[in-house]
Order: sequence, then C-alpha cells, then structure tokens
Amino acid sequence: MIVEFSIIPIGKGESLSQYIAKIIDIVDKSGLPYKLTAMGTIVEGEWDDIMELIKECHFKMREYCNRVYTKITIDDREKAKNRIEEKVRAGEEILGRKVSK
Amino acid sequence: MIVEFSIIPIGKGESLSQYIAKIIDIVDKSGLPYKLTAMGTIVEGEWDDIMELIKECHFKMREYCNRVYTKITIDDREKAKNRIEEKVRAGEEILGRKVSK
Amino acid sequence: MIVEFSIIPIGKGESLSQYIAKIIDIVDKSGLPYKLTAMGTIVEGEWDDIMELIKECHFKMREYCNRVYTKITIDDREKAKNRIEEKVRAGEEILGRKVSK
Amino acid sequence: MIVEFSIIPIGKGESLSQYIAKIIDIVDKSGLPYKLTAMGTIVEGEWDDIMELIKECHFKMREYCNRVYTKITIDDREKAKNRIEEKVRAGEEILGRKVSK
Repeated sequence: MIVEFSIIPIGKGESLSQYIAKIIDIVDKSGLPYKLTAMGTIVEGEWDDIMELIKECHFKMREYCNRVYTKITIDDREKAKNRIEEKVRAGEEILGRKVSK
Repeated sequence: MIVEFSIIPIGKGESLSQYIAKIIDIVDKSGLPYKLTAMGTIVEGEWDDIMELIKECHFKMREYCNRVYTKITIDDREKAKNRIEEKVRAGEEILGRKVSK
Repeated sequence: MIVEFSIIPIGKGESLSQYIAKIIDIVDKSGLPYKLTAMGTIVEGEWDDIMELIKECHFKMREYCNRVYTKITIDDREKAKNRIEEKVRAGEEILGRKVSK
Repeated sequence: MIVEFSIIPIGKGESLSQYIAKIIDIVDKSGLPYKLTAMGTIVEGEWDDIMELIKECHFKMREYCNRVYTKITIDDREKAKNRIEEKVRAGEEILGRKVSK
C-alpha cells in the first residue's frame, strides 16, 4: 500500500523545518521506499511496517511538543506495487505527455 | 488522543452504506468511546488501541473491495481527556452560546 | 454536497479554542446547515457558498496568525440532500441498531 | 499559499488513471506552478486562483461520475514563496543531507 503522512507540531512557532528534519531522518533510516513532498511524506510498504514508522515519527515529535496533529492517507490496492512513481506515470501515459519534473 | 478516520471502498458503486455499516459494527464492539459523523468516525484512546481498530476496519473493507482509501487524522494533546465532547464545548463556551445540536 | 473543514493556526500556542470560537461564529452566522465535531465543522450546501464560507474563516484566522493550515474534505453526490444526519442514519439502518448519541 | 488536492471518483471501478489524466490536463493548462505526486497534486498560488482550478477539476470529474470525493489541504504562510521545492530543501538543509530524488 501507499501512504502519505504529515506530522504537524502545534504551538512550537511558525517555522517547523527543524522538527520536520528529525522526522525525515527517521523515515530515511527506516529502509522503506519513500518520497518527500512539500506537503508530507509518501511511503510504500505493508500496514504494520508503515504504521510502526509513523508511530515512531509521531512520538518523536511529541518529545518536542505537547500537541501534535498527524494526518495519514492510505491508498491500498490489491497487487499494486512500486506505486510512488507508477501512479504519476500512469496518469501521464494516458494524458499522452510528461508533466512531472 | 482523539482520532477521526474514514474508510472508502473504491470501485464498489456509488452507495457505500452497506459497507460502512460493517465498519460501524466493528467500532461499536471495540469498547472505545466514539462518535459517528457524516464524514467519518471519531474515536478516543491510546495509539495502539486506535490503530489496531482502524487496521481491523480497513482490512474488513478490503475483504469486500480490491481498493480501499483510508484517511486518518490524529489530534494528540498532552493530558487532554474526554475530548470528543469537550472540544466542541470549549469553543461554545468562549463563543458564549451553544451551537451544537 | 457535504463538506468537512478544519482550520488550524500554527504557532499560536497549544490551546486553540479562542481562535476556533471565532470560526464557529462565522459558520453559525452563514445560515448554512452545519454540525460541529471534535475534529472540524461539517456544512452542507453548494460549492460556491461553502467555499466562500471557508475562505472567510481561513482569512479570519490569518488575521490572528501568520501561518494557517486548513483541511477540506468534500463528498459530492448527485441529488443527495440533508446528508449531515442522513449518512449516519443510513449506516445505522443497515446495521440494525442505533449507535449515534 | 501551497495547496495539495486529490479528486477521487467513487463507483467508477478500481482503476482511476483515465479520470485522473483529465484532471492533470486541466492543472497543466492552468499556468499555476504544480507538482504531481502519487497521492495528489500540489499547486502554489493565491486562494481564488487555486480554488477556481480545484472547482473546475472537481466538476470535470462529476461529468464522469455521480459521486466525487475531493480532499484539499492548504498551508498558507505569510510571505512564503516558491515553497513546492523550498519546503523539501529546508528540511534537508537542517538534516545535513539530501534525501529527495
């Protein structure tokens, strides 16, 4: 399955990059395929592995912050694999031109 | 923590109530405090209990459907309890009038 | 269509009720049918009316806060009406018992 | 502001690429800076321009489908510009290494 998540510290000021960097570090070390976007992190894998990763990220943020807002979106499709890149490509293929950069 | 989730079967037609009812049944039997809304289910509890519940709901839906889209939003605040009702009441209290029905 | 939205001020501390109350006030005066939940506000109406309302709420929050995170979920179904209550009831009817409070 | 959105047709089968391609086409012609991800589209611009674009995409999907589920997430920060690439880079800079591909 493919999962997008974002973890937002509430009440730690307006600039969040220093906190987000700690999350990226955990994701990067997890070994799961992932992609950072401007709005979150997309990972691919099995439910338990992904949820364990998100839990670790969420509670790392809670060490810095008393209130954390975490958003998770799961797209789980039978037999679908390598979808972080594939889903963008499938849309482009039907459209007949490349728009991703 | 307080968590809202919704589980959407993709490709099972336009009317989803029969599938949603099976999810409600699982939530109701979980023993966790919850509230149904028109857009999802709000539950309160600890991370592991809630995620175990959502996992069960998600894979129940996958039995009926090859593609499932699940959305989870977590609001986790230190020491906050009984927030399913409290959060609405806190807003109303400051507003100075009751608007919930 | 039925729309859930939540507007989160980033960097204004951990307690958000005073800001949320201002949003509730705008929603209440809009005249659109709505329901507050612990995780957001659900409104029903046409696209333009709802988006105008959310825009007003978002920019009211921006007066207090340099960074605002707004989340909107739209469930738009042909000919469906009065769904704030109906969707919960439809699930319960199939389930065969009432679980909403 | 930076906005992520995804538009999901409900009840049009499991494979959605052909519908998603039509949305990509509208986004591409809008002239707004954007980036496709496996979970949605990220655009940057002003509220009215972005909401007009999402409205057009949503109702294009409604031509093909009686039920459409649209999800929008807005991150609006005072004076912040060129954030589609910048937000990823800011996290990497603090982390001290490049992880985006």
